[in-house]
Amino acid sequence: MPRPVILGIVGDSASGKTTISRGLVRVLGEESIAHICTDDYHRYDRAQRADLQLTPLNPGCNHLDIIAQHLQHLRRGEPILKPVYRHQDGTFGPAEYVRPGRFTIIEGLLGYHLPEMREVYDVRIFLDPPEDVRRRWKVQRDCSRRGYTTDDVLAELDRREADSEQFIRPQRHYADMTISFLSPGGGDDGTYLDAELILGDGLPHPDLTPFVGDRPDGLTLRERDGERVLRIPGRIDPELASAIEEAIWSRMHFATHLRARRLGEFTVATDLRRSEALALVQLLVLYHLVTARAMVALGGDRARVDTDAAAAV
Amino acid sequence: MPRPVILGIVGDSASGKTTISRGLVRVLGEESIAHICTDDYHRYDRAQRADLQLTPLNPGCNHLDIIAQHLQHLRRGEPILKPVYRHQDGTFGPAEYVRPGRFTIIEGLLGYHLPEMREVYDVRIFLDPPEDVRRRWKVQRDCSRRGYTTDDVLAELDRREADSEQFIRPQRHYADMTISFLSPGGGDDGTYLDAELILGDGLPHPDLTPFVGDRPDGLTLRERDGERVLRIPGRIDPELASAIEEAIWSRMHFATHLRARRLGEFTVATDLRRSEALALVQLLVLYHLVTARAMVALGGDRARVDTDAAAAV
Repeated sequence: MPRPVILGIVGDSASGKTTISRGLVRVLGEESIAHICTDDYHRYDRAQRADLQLTPLNPGCNHLDIIAQHLQHLRRGEPILKPVYRHQDGTFGPAEYVRPGRFTIIEGLLGYHLPEMREVYDVRIFLDPPEDVRRRWKVQRDCSRRGYTTDDVLAELDRREADSEQFIRPQRHYADMTISFLSPGGGDDGTYLDAELILGDGLPHPDLTPFVGDRPDGLTLRERDGERVLRIPGRIDPELASAIEEAIWSRMHFATHLRARRLGEFTVATDLRRSEALALVQLLVLYHLVTARAMVALGGDRARVDTDAAAAV
Repeated sequence: MPRPVILGIVGDSASGKTTISRGLVRVLGEESIAHICTDDYHRYDRAQRADLQLTPLNPGCNHLDIIAQHLQHLRRGEPILKPVYRHQDGTFGPAEYVRPGRFTIIEGLLGYHLPEMREVYDVRIFLDPPEDVRRRWKVQRDCSRRGYTTDDVLAELDRREADSEQFIRPQRHYADMTISFLSPGGGDDGTYLDAELILGDGLPHPDLTPFVGDRPDGLTLRERDGERVLRIPGRIDPELASAIEEAIWSRMHFATHLRARRLGEFTVATDLRRSEALALVQLLVLYHLVTARAMVALGGDRARVDTDAAAAV
């Protein structure tokens, strides 16, 4: 059996990691995915962190060496015994036995911090929403699902800012694709957020130039600070969106059996919604996964530019 | 730094594993020892085992593949994140970060079950007391320290007998040294139990033939079923015991700084006692550890006969 394909989804708290991966799980099927959140590898529980005045964004607050060790096992197709951190009460539970899936998603805060972690992934995504969007998302989630008050969450965001800046954001340089959802008019509920992708040089991206132009409801592609930035408007022309989807699917004809499953869904509290821009973003990630899988099945690894070097350019 | 030396101490429940290792820890020093009990790798907690009608002696009741994986990390000098099983209430606790020590003791029920486990150890001990002695020890320990009644413990021993026979006892064939404590007259309190050692062909043992004879208070060495059996009487002549200790220490002159520390202590409930035969047994294990350490430090591994093949002879 070919080795598992490993996808990294890294970003700050409430940056949309789970929303991205949920669509991939829906398309690829639960049975072929293992999904690991590196929050489980916290070194201290919530009470200890409070005593030590440490945030979970601090590398010293996490067993990063063990994450790297476990990633290497998973990539070789080997099982791990994974620690468990319970967000409900901030304590640790019994360890869990986890086998890698054909696709293995590693989601977390510091997934690209160590070189020996970075080299494990076939595809590296970094989520980088603007702070105003991320703050809104974090308040929504932590109040509705983790039992905090708005004031708690805002104070926690302030307390974490220095670590976000020092440890989380620099990881964007290692990404094959950096994803932001932007609210150009402000105050959007999510359905019509624009997606902005920075296309790294590490992996070959599908050619979308035939669809690029300067229409406000179409794709735009431009250079910014030496990076290629693709923008997908939240209110993209539905016919154009279909044509783009068609073009991407046609480049992964070996995976067309997956087409029937829906992409682009997300939740606001318990309300299920759909975003066309999110669907296209997920499809681009899926493209990279399916292509990596095909290369691994053929006995090779995907051609990867040395992204550390590329990031330094 | 040279890689850690790995000692296996395997045997059934209450066969004396902790008593043997406690003396080694006392001599080698807490700071240079990591001590791991493979009970932590149970797959099911106590309630689940009861539902499934499985004993912890059943290989399927333990994450043996993960034990093998962790042993390999420890031998390479790498840390592990170890699961934790709590004997007090039969549940799992938070995982623990463990670094290997210069000497790393792996103690447990099934440590030699898989070939990839067996190949990790530098020294393999198997504890094999007669059933009447082990039953007495298990009742003493489980009633005084784990909150069971005598009837509980005896019923549990009966329930485990088939698995003991099928899974635990066959592992003696992989040992470099099999250790039994015998009560020739019956009913002994432990201080004067005889020690009987089966000296495997896997490692070179120190030459004790100058001390062997047929005195009832001296060492005897004989062949039994093709195995070399060394007997150390519980009431060994104290002068002879000192001479033997001297001889063994003289063969590990690079470790004489350890001599001041006491061997041979054991507890019955909360009562601390000492056995000369236990002290000599621990010293023989120590000899193998210190010799393995010297070989590793010299850049080689200890010459080991293929004990799997030897066991098959």
